[in-house]
Amino acid sequence: MKTIKYPAKSDWQDLILRPEREKESLLDTVKSVFNDIKISGDSALKLYTEKFDNVNLTQLKVSKEEIDDSTNKISMALQEAIVRAKNNIEKFHSSQKEHPKLIDIEPGVICWRESRPIEKVGLYIPGGTAPLFSTVLMLGIPAKLAGCKEIILCTPPDSEGDIHPAILFAAKTVGITEIYKVGGIQAIAALSLGTESIPAVYKIFGPGNQYVTAAKKYAQEFNISIDLPAGPSEVLIIADEQANPSFVAADLLSQAEHGTDSQVIFLTTDEAILEKTLKEIENQLKQLPRKEIAAKALDHSTAILFNSIDECIQFSNQYAPEHLILAIKDFVNYVNKIENAGSVFLGNYSCESAGDYASGTNHTLPTNGYARNYSGVSLDSFVKKITFQELTQEGIQNLGPTIELMAEAEELLGHKNAVSLRLK
Amino acid sequence: MKTIKYPAKSDWQDLILRPEREKESLLDTVKSVFNDIKISGDSALKLYTEKFDNVNLTQLKVSKEEIDDSTNKISMALQEAIVRAKNNIEKFHSSQKEHPKLIDIEPGVICWRESRPIEKVGLYIPGGTAPLFSTVLMLGIPAKLAGCKEIILCTPPDSEGDIHPAILFAAKTVGITEIYKVGGIQAIAALSLGTESIPAVYKIFGPGNQYVTAAKKYAQEFNISIDLPAGPSEVLIIADEQANPSFVAADLLSQAEHGTDSQVIFLTTDEAILEKTLKEIENQLKQLPRKEIAAKALDHSTAILFNSIDECIQFSNQYAPEHLILAIKDFVNYVNKIENAGSVFLGNYSCESAGDYASGTNHTLPTNGYARNYSGVSLDSFVKKITFQELTQEGIQNLGPTIELMAEAEELLGHKNAVSLRLK
Repeated sequence: MKTIKYPAKSDWQDLILRPEREKESLLDTVKSVFNDIKISGDSALKLYTEKFDNVNLTQLKVSKEEIDDSTNKISMALQEAIVRAKNNIEKFHSSQKEHPKLIDIEPGVICWRESRPIEKVGLYIPGGTAPLFSTVLMLGIPAKLAGCKEIILCTPPDSEGDIHPAILFAAKTVGITEIYKVGGIQAIAALSLGTESIPAVYKIFGPGNQYVTAAKKYAQEFNISIDLPAGPSEVLIIADEQANPSFVAADLLSQAEHGTDSQVIFLTTDEAILEKTLKEIENQLKQLPRKEIAAKALDHSTAILFNSIDECIQFSNQYAPEHLILAIKDFVNYVNKIENAGSVFLGNYSCESAGDYASGTNHTLPTNGYARNYSGVSLDSFVKKITFQELTQEGIQNLGPTIELMAEAEELLGHKNAVSLRLK
Repeated sequence: MKTIKYPAKSDWQDLILRPEREKESLLDTVKSVFNDIKISGDSALKLYTEKFDNVNLTQLKVSKEEIDDSTNKISMALQEAIVRAKNNIEKFHSSQKEHPKLIDIEPGVICWRESRPIEKVGLYIPGGTAPLFSTVLMLGIPAKLAGCKEIILCTPPDSEGDIHPAILFAAKTVGITEIYKVGGIQAIAALSLGTESIPAVYKIFGPGNQYVTAAKKYAQEFNISIDLPAGPSEVLIIADEQANPSFVAADLLSQAEHGTDSQVIFLTTDEAILEKTLKEIENQLKQLPRKEIAAKALDHSTAILFNSIDECIQFSNQYAPEHLILAIKDFVNYVNKIENAGSVFLGNYSCESAGDYASGTNHTLPTNGYARNYSGVSLDSFVKKITFQELTQEGIQNLGPTIELMAEAEELLGHKNAVSLRLK
């Protein structure tokens, strides 16, 4: 971890840079897979699954028995944890429901808006040894709350042709039953184009490797929308003299262990805390199973000493972190000053892991500086908001002349005529 | 206008197709302009403006005098109309403000979310003979309400180097003062990369021709977000026996006059209304200054007779129109059945022109079937929603074991450790 003390403001622009990602274009690969899926559907999916996941599937869809069996394959304690997290996530996302408010604009002119679910959504859950069942909750719960009619979950099978039971149990807990054993570009292609067994959807959610990311980007050419542009995960922690170096180090490392391209930024006003935290990182790192990944992430990470918490907040706003932890005493005074961040954790006991799993907030958040212009996933991500208006005869009499004047000035006489006829 | 009676459901998929747009790739052109702007900034902007707008500018920024002078150059009646529309749009968009709700998740765990403005936004207003000042209101008002700090407006100058006074007056009315005389790809490049005089922004809004559209798409490579993907404008009208054929025809034509690639769809359950409306279209078309454009749009537009209003609504949901007009008696009973639409107009007196200009709703809406997965522009488009959480020591004691179990099951021991240290 690089350490910098009191950098000049002119140097900040360099300090907020993210680690460069390889910009290898995968577009040709993606196009060719999409084309195969378009032409050969399920049979192409099975061929790709054999090639990349080393398993020959006869059936892509996870059976009801497999889903039900998941309960027997994970501990009761984990089941209870998943249910508890589900309840919290549901509670928080329920609070995001918007109820129509009729607005009386002028006599005879009423406008409002109403939310409608995106009818068909696809959720992608990556494979690998660690099953990301928490992401099933984070995407499935708001999809259900929104009322999406078709929720299609795709995730790659292991070499036995199985899906990890924690993923199936989380899906079952949420109420998702359409689960398909397919991953990679081919999964995104199936969700975009549809096959004999997998229905096409309107919006695709979920994390993935560079192939999945490239495929999600390409899916947009087919009028599909996606949750968020991709980028490496990151946390920025601001600590004052009362922070706990051991907690701060653990939070930095929990982000660093995500991937070698993760980035962690540590800002403090206290030199002793800085030194102690760096030492703690060194000690804790040794204990981590994923220490090699975390160490590489720390290589392009930075600790910076600043003169004031205000300066730390300014820097953070410029960096626009995915996760922001305020390990400071009077965090209450700084909430209003936060301009760009995905999700914010306040005080010494609000660790990022809480939001990653179980406190209720969503963990699908804008990375790579996108917190400047994107929100994280929420109930809003699964609905459209449609505006409605009702003008009575009185309403158009009132407002009509205004519309006529404006339409005429824009030289759209058809627009004007639609009003004039009604005023007659 | 093609007329179809009682189509089979199996034919619907063909009937909802939009007119094909030329898919000429403008990417090379766009890249080369972006590159010129990156290297030469303002001087490249001036060269492009000379080439495409036929005017040699010394200053790109519209002066305070020019903005102030706009008041003298448009009629008092138009000024009043713009101010009235502004008040209505402001009233409606103000109602979209979200106030933080603290959610008690568990003892010691509180979560909420707060909106923050996107700090820097760019608004693009196309040029041409007709000044689209209404779009200045539709984008500028929510940007101001959201609290965006920098609102940069770009619009191409005429051959005298001037901006239409109605655009300047609308901007002034909204409170926008950063206005630049630049259009086309070069404007989007300037907003994306920044130049000596034009600041770079985080999100770009506004309509435009195929060049502007291609440039907005490319801007996303620079981590810029955009309002909506582009497509031709469209309206779908559903009418029953009590509808007024003259009103319906005028509404269809007001959409058709937008552009040759516009599409209008007319659904009715009443054959007499169908015939009368087609006749009315013929008559009214002759009177329109933009009759040639409208006639071409009608060439790829369709009128369909259905058996029931329910069937019309089903078809409309499948089509997912940008604008939907329900010229039916008991529209109240059908509001809940509308699943996909950008903006909905209820009853015989709610013409689309009202929403285009002055009733308060936004006119920047999802086209081309994007109403299935996108909302129109609203206050939400100019903010990010940031989640916050505060866990007390009690909170982490409560929830900690759940988080530990889940993190361990995902094999993220660093995540678990961040909790375990706090439980000690």
